[in-house]
Amino acid sequence: MLFTLLHSGQISPAPTKSSLPISTQIPSTEVVQQTPSGVKDRGVTTSELHVNRQPVKSESFFRSCEVFMSSQMSDGNMSPKITGELLRHLRQVMKNCKCVSEPLQAYIVPSGDAHQSEYIAPCDCRREFICGFNGSAGTAIVTEQYAAMWTDGRYFLQATQQMDNNWTLMRMGLKETPSQEDWLISVLPENSKVGVDPWIIAADQWKAMSKALTSAGHSLIAVQENLIDVVWSDRPQRPSTQLRTLGLDYTGMSWQDKITALRAKMTERKMSWFIATALDEIAWLFNLRGADIEYNPVFFAYTIVGINTIRLFVDIKRLADPSLREHLQLDMPSKPEFDIQTFPYESVFTELQAICAALGPKDKVWICDKASCALTQVIPQAHRSPIPYTPLCLAKAVKNTTEIQGMRTAHIKDAVALCDLFAWLEKEIPKGTVTEISAADKAEELRSQQKHFVGLSFPTISSVGPNAAIIHYRPLPETNRTLTINEVYLIDSGAQYIDGTTDVTRTMHFGTPSAYEKECFTYVLKGHIAVSAAIFPNGTKGHLLDSFARAALWESGLDYLHGTGHGVGCFLNVHEGPCGISYKTFADEPLEAGMIVSDEPGYYEDGAFGIRLENVVLVVPTKPKYNYRNRGSLTFEPLTLVPIQVKMMNTELLTQKERDWVNEYHRTCREVVGAELERQDRKEALEWLVRETQPIV
Amino acid sequence: MLFTLLHSGQISPAPTKSSLPISTQIPSTEVVQQTPSGVKDRGVTTSELHVNRQPVKSESFFRSCEVFMSSQMSDGNMSPKITGELLRHLRQVMKNCKCVSEPLQAYIVPSGDAHQSEYIAPCDCRREFICGFNGSAGTAIVTEQYAAMWTDGRYFLQATQQMDNNWTLMRMGLKETPSQEDWLISVLPENSKVGVDPWIIAADQWKAMSKALTSAGHSLIAVQENLIDVVWSDRPQRPSTQLRTLGLDYTGMSWQDKITALRAKMTERKMSWFIATALDEIAWLFNLRGADIEYNPVFFAYTIVGINTIRLFVDIKRLADPSLREHLQLDMPSKPEFDIQTFPYESVFTELQAICAALGPKDKVWICDKASCALTQVIPQAHRSPIPYTPLCLAKAVKNTTEIQGMRTAHIKDAVALCDLFAWLEKEIPKGTVTEISAADKAEELRSQQKHFVGLSFPTISSVGPNAAIIHYRPLPETNRTLTINEVYLIDSGAQYIDGTTDVTRTMHFGTPSAYEKECFTYVLKGHIAVSAAIFPNGTKGHLLDSFARAALWESGLDYLHGTGHGVGCFLNVHEGPCGISYKTFADEPLEAGMIVSDEPGYYEDGAFGIRLENVVLVVPTKPKYNYRNRGSLTFEPLTLVPIQVKMMNTELLTQKERDWVNEYHRTCREVVGAELERQDRKEALEWLVRETQPIV
Repeated sequence: MLFTLLHSGQISPAPTKSSLPISTQIPSTEVVQQTPSGVKDRGVTTSELHVNRQPVKSESFFRSCEVFMSSQMSDGNMSPKITGELLRHLRQVMKNCKCVSEPLQAYIVPSGDAHQSEYIAPCDCRREFICGFNGSAGTAIVTEQYAAMWTDGRYFLQATQQMDNNWTLMRMGLKETPSQEDWLISVLPENSKVGVDPWIIAADQWKAMSKALTSAGHSLIAVQENLIDVVWSDRPQRPSTQLRTLGLDYTGMSWQDKITALRAKMTERKMSWFIATALDEIAWLFNLRGADIEYNPVFFAYTIVGINTIRLFVDIKRLADPSLREHLQLDMPSKPEFDIQTFPYESVFTELQAICAALGPKDKVWICDKASCALTQVIPQAHRSPIPYTPLCLAKAVKNTTEIQGMRTAHIKDAVALCDLFAWLEKEIPKGTVTEISAADKAEELRSQQKHFVGLSFPTISSVGPNAAIIHYRPLPETNRTLTINEVYLIDSGAQYIDGTTDVTRTMHFGTPSAYEKECFTYVLKGHIAVSAAIFPNGTKGHLLDSFARAALWESGLDYLHGTGHGVGCFLNVHEGPCGISYKTFADEPLEAGMIVSDEPGYYEDGAFGIRLENVVLVVPTKPKYNYRNRGSLTFEPLTLVPIQVKMMNTELLTQKERDWVNEYHRTCREVVGAELERQDRKEALEWLVRETQPIV
Repeated sequence: MLFTLLHSGQISPAPTKSSLPISTQIPSTEVVQQTPSGVKDRGVTTSELHVNRQPVKSESFFRSCEVFMSSQMSDGNMSPKITGELLRHLRQVMKNCKCVSEPLQAYIVPSGDAHQSEYIAPCDCRREFICGFNGSAGTAIVTEQYAAMWTDGRYFLQATQQMDNNWTLMRMGLKETPSQEDWLISVLPENSKVGVDPWIIAADQWKAMSKALTSAGHSLIAVQENLIDVVWSDRPQRPSTQLRTLGLDYTGMSWQDKITALRAKMTERKMSWFIATALDEIAWLFNLRGADIEYNPVFFAYTIVGINTIRLFVDIKRLADPSLREHLQLDMPSKPEFDIQTFPYESVFTELQAICAALGPKDKVWICDKASCALTQVIPQAHRSPIPYTPLCLAKAVKNTTEIQGMRTAHIKDAVALCDLFAWLEKEIPKGTVTEISAADKAEELRSQQKHFVGLSFPTISSVGPNAAIIHYRPLPETNRTLTINEVYLIDSGAQYIDGTTDVTRTMHFGTPSAYEKECFTYVLKGHIAVSAAIFPNGTKGHLLDSFARAALWESGLDYLHGTGHGVGCFLNVHEGPCGISYKTFADEPLEAGMIVSDEPGYYEDGAFGIRLENVVLVVPTKPKYNYRNRGSLTFEPLTLVPIQVKMMNTELLTQKERDWVNEYHRTCREVVGAELERQDRKEALEWLVRETQPIV
C-alpha cells in the first residue's frame, strides 16, 4: 500500500512523522463505539469482515510529502457536522479555571495520538470530533472568535463538505494561506495564551510553535487536561484488547535478548535510560501483539529501560492472563535484570519524573525526537539525548532468519488467496455482478481462509476505471463501480498473519486493454523491475534508487506523485521506518540486508485509469563481478509472488533483460505458489497461475 | 573539475559551504607575494603560465562531503613548518589587552575568507600560516597549552608532514577523534573565553559552537582584530586588481536590469534591504570581473541594495578608471535609483550598522545564511531574513541567451585547444619526452592561443597511471610521471574566457588499453550517457539523477566516491551553486532550463589507474511523447565538444541507444569543432578530430 506525500514544492525543514498529523476517518456525526478488529486465530466470517473493514478508514501516511491535487474523491460522511454548540462549550472550557490555569485565547487541536501513531484509535480522533473533518491530515485551531482548520490539497473538497460555516478551511500549499503561527499572530490580541495538549504535539513541533508565538509576545501553554475530552461527553474508551504472546518460532529472538541488545547499544552510547513511546517498537520488543488500533497489531503502552531495570506501562488488567505472565516472567523472573516492573499506562509521566529527579550528573536519557512534548520535557535538557530513530526502530527493521521465513510463508499464503481471487474474478466479472466492494470482500474472505490470518493490514483499495486514478480511493456504496471487461482494475491489499504482514498491488484487465493502457503499464513495470533488479553498494540510502523507478515514465513525459516504497513490519505495521524508497530524503536510513520494503511505482490518468505494481521485497546481499573497497553489494528479492498480468504488457517495449526478469519471476511464482495451491487443492487458482505464468518471448 | 566530498558516514546537519573551510596551498615557509593571475586578453607565455599555475593550488571543494581515504598523494611543501615561536607570540597576543578585551584561553583559526569563497587569496591563508598545513580543509585551535588541527582523511599524511610537533593532528571521520567543541570542553579550564574572528566564521557555525561552549560554562568571543594578522608580520596585502567591465554582448543583461529584477524579488518577499557578500554574486550583479583570487575572476567587495539605493564597498582606488566609472554611471546616473554610492571595502560594517539603526518596525534585511557572523549579527534578529540561496545566486545560475551563446563559443575554442593537445600528445608521447607537467603546460599554451583567453579556471589535473587514481592529484616535480603508451592518461582542465568558463575531463590511452581498463571506462561512459541523455520533469533536483551515473558501475560492484556534477559559472567560478548532481541532497535547488552543470562520473583503482569523463552540459527543455500534468520535461545538451576515445570503449558493453548517443555526439564534435579547426587552420588537430569521431558500429 502506497504512502503519499505532501507539499513537495516548498521544502519544509525536514517534516517529521508527527508534523503530518493523522486521524482515522469515522463518520463524525455518530458516536463510534470501540470496535477492535480483534485478534483472531482461525479466520473470520465475511460478515465479521464487514465490521472490520468499515469503521476505521484511516489513510496510509508516512513522513515524506507531496501536494496531491488530483480530483480527490472524498470518502466518509459528507454532510457537515453542526459545531456551534460544541465550539461554544469548548470556548467556555478555555476560560474555565478548573481546566486551565489561566484563560486561553486559542486552543490547538492536532490530529494524532500520544505515540505518534500513523493510524489512531477512535478515542484519539479529537480533531475530527471538534470540526467534523475526518481526513487523515489536519490541524484545528479555535480562538475566542474564530475556528480554522489546516489541511492539504487532497482534502479541500472533503473538508468543505464535512465542516459547517463556523469553520474556515485553511488550504495548505496555496501561497495565500497563512501558516498556523502567522494566522494566530494576526488574529490574537496582545499577550495571548495559546493552549495545546503536550501529549499530542511532538517536542520539535512544540519548539517551533512556541518560538514563533513568543517572538510575537504570546505564549504557548501546555494544558495537561485535553480540552476536547472535556467537551466530548461520549468519547470512546481507550481500547484495551487482549494481548497475544509470540514465541521464538515467530520472533526468532526472545524479548530478553532484545533487551540485552538494547542495553548494549545504550552502553555503547553511554545512555542510562531509554524511553520507548512508539507502539510498534514496544510490541516488537516484548514479542507481544494487541489489537488496540485497527490494522496495526499494537497495544497502548510505554516502556522505560534502564541498565538493570525494565518498566512497562500498560493497562494492568491486561496482565492477568497466566500465559502472558509467564511470557513476561512477571511472577518469577529468571534474572533480576529481566524483572519487568509493571505500572498503569497513565503513570509513565510521574515515573519518568521520579527517574529524572534521581539522575546523576553524567546520566543520559535516550528518547526519539518525535516523542511527545510532554514526555520529552520531563527530561532535563542536559540529560536528554533525542534521536531520529531509536535503536529499537533500527533493530526491528532488520529482520532475522525466523522473521524472514515467516514473511516468506505469509506471502505465499497471500499469493494463494490472490490467485484464487483473480481466477474467481475472471469467471465472475463477465456476469456483471462483481463490484469494487464485493471484490474487496472476496479478497478478504479468501485471505481469511489462510492459516494464521489475523485481519487486514490496511483497508483494501479496490478500484476500477477512473476510480483507480484516485490514489487514496476506498470503495464506498456511493462510489462503488461494477467491474467489467472494459476497464482496468487495480487492487492494493494486504493482511496480517501471525507469521508476517503482506501488501501487494496488481493491476489487471479482464477484457482487452488499450494500447495506451498497455504502454503506461509497461513503463510502470520497467520501473518496478529497475528497482527490484538494482544492484547497489552496501550503505546506499533508498532515495538513491527512487529515480530508477521513474526513468522509463520520465522518458515518455510521465510520472507519479508518490514515493516508490516503504518499510514493512513483520506481523506489525504495514508502514514502518526507518528505510524507504522515495525522492524525499528524510526518514531514510541506509538499506541493509534483512530489511523489507515495498517497490510500488504507478501511473495515474485522471478520470481514466490507474496503474500500480507493488511487490514487497527483501534486501539481500549479492556478489557482482567486482567488490570495490570491499563494501559488498545488495539487491532485492521479491517476497510477493503473484503473477503480473502479461496481457497488460507491451512486451516490445521491454528489453531482453526485463523479459528475462518477468519470466524468472513468473517461474518462481509458479513453482512456489503452485506447490501451495496444489497442497490446498485449489484447482482453478492453480490453472489460472499456470496460465498466467507462461514465459513471454 | 570534480568537487569532492567529506564525512559521508556521519550525517552532519546540513553542512554548509562555510562549514567546510578551504584554504589555498602555498608553500608555507616562504613569504608568498601577491601574484594575481592577472586578467589577460591576448594570451600569456608559457613561463608566465608557470607562475600562474603554481602559487595557488587550492583544491576544488563544494558543500557535500564524503571521507576520501585513498592513498592520498599530498602536494605542496612537505617539510614541517617550525611554529614554536609563532605559537608563543600568538599566545601572548591572546592575553594582550590591546588586542582582546579579556584574556582568551583558546583561539580558533578556520580556513576561509570573509566571503565564504571556495578559493581564497594568499592574505587569507591564516590557518596555513599558523600551523604549516596547506590542504584545502582544516581548522586550527590554539589554547594556552595545546595546538590542534582538524582535517579529513585526504590530508592525514600531508598534515603530519607539514606540521611540527607543537601540533596535534585531529583526524576527522575517525570514531575516536573528538569534535572541536568536545575537545575544547575537555581541555579548557572552567569559565574559559574562546576567541574567533567573526568575519571568517559563518553565522550558523558561530551559533553551533557558541551553544556548545555556553552549555559547558565557557563563552565564544568575537575578536574584532584577527590575532593571526597581529603575529603575521609579512602578511601579503589584500589583492586589488584592475576591474574589467563586461558589456551587454557578454552579459545579455545590464546591471541596472539585474538590480531591477533583484528589487522585484525584494518587493515580492517584502524585503527592504539585501546584503550581497559572495564575490561571484557581486561580480555578476555589476557585470564586472576582477582577478583578486586566482582562477576566479572576482574582486573583493560587498554590496547593499535597498529599494532606492545601491551601496558598493570596494577599494576606492579601483574606481578611478573612466570606462569603469561610465559603466557604473558613477558620475551621472541615468536615474536616481541606479545611483551607486561607493564606500571603502572596510566600511561595510559601520554602514550596515547605520542602516540597521534606522530600520522601521516592518523592515526586513535579506542575507545569505552562509554570510559571516560579523555582518549577520549586525542585523537585529527581528529584522533578519536568512536564506540558503540569495536571489542573485538563483538568477546567476540560470543563464540567458547571450551567456549561453558565450558558453558555447568558449567550449568550441576549448575543444580546439584540446584536439590540438591530443594530436600533439599522440605524436610526442612515443618519444618519451612528455610529462604530466609539460602536458598541462602544453594544454595551457594551446588554450592561451584562443580568443578572449583570460587564464585557467582551476589548476590542471594532469595525471598518468596510478597518479590518476588520486582524485586530488596535481603534478609536482617530485611526483611528475612521464606519459607512455602503456598507461592511461587523465586530464581534467578548464579555462576562463571572457565569453565563458570551461571544465572538461578526458581519459585516454595512447597505446593499447587492457580489457579491464576498457571495461571500467565503458561503465563510466554508460553512466555519463545515462545522465546526459536523461529526460526528467521540470522541477527535478539534481540528486535524483546521481544514481543514473552509477548504475552500470554498481551492477559490476564498482563505484566512485565523489559527486557527479556541479554548477558552472559564465566567466565566473567553475563551481557555483545552487544546483548540482550528487548523492548528497543539500545545496540542491531544482534544475531549470538555462542552468549549466558538469556530468563527470569516474572510476579509480588505487595504485593502478583513474578514469573520469566530464562534459559541461546545459539544461534544455525537451518534448517527450506525453506531458504529464503539463509540467514539461528537461534534458541536457553537451556544451563540451571533445571526442571521447573510442579505443577505451568496449563497444560490446554498450546498448544500441548508447552507441547512437556516442555517434551523434561525435558527429556534433566533428561538425562544430571541425569547422572552427578549419577556420583556425589547425590541420593536425582536424585530422585527429575526424579520425577520433568515426562512428562506432
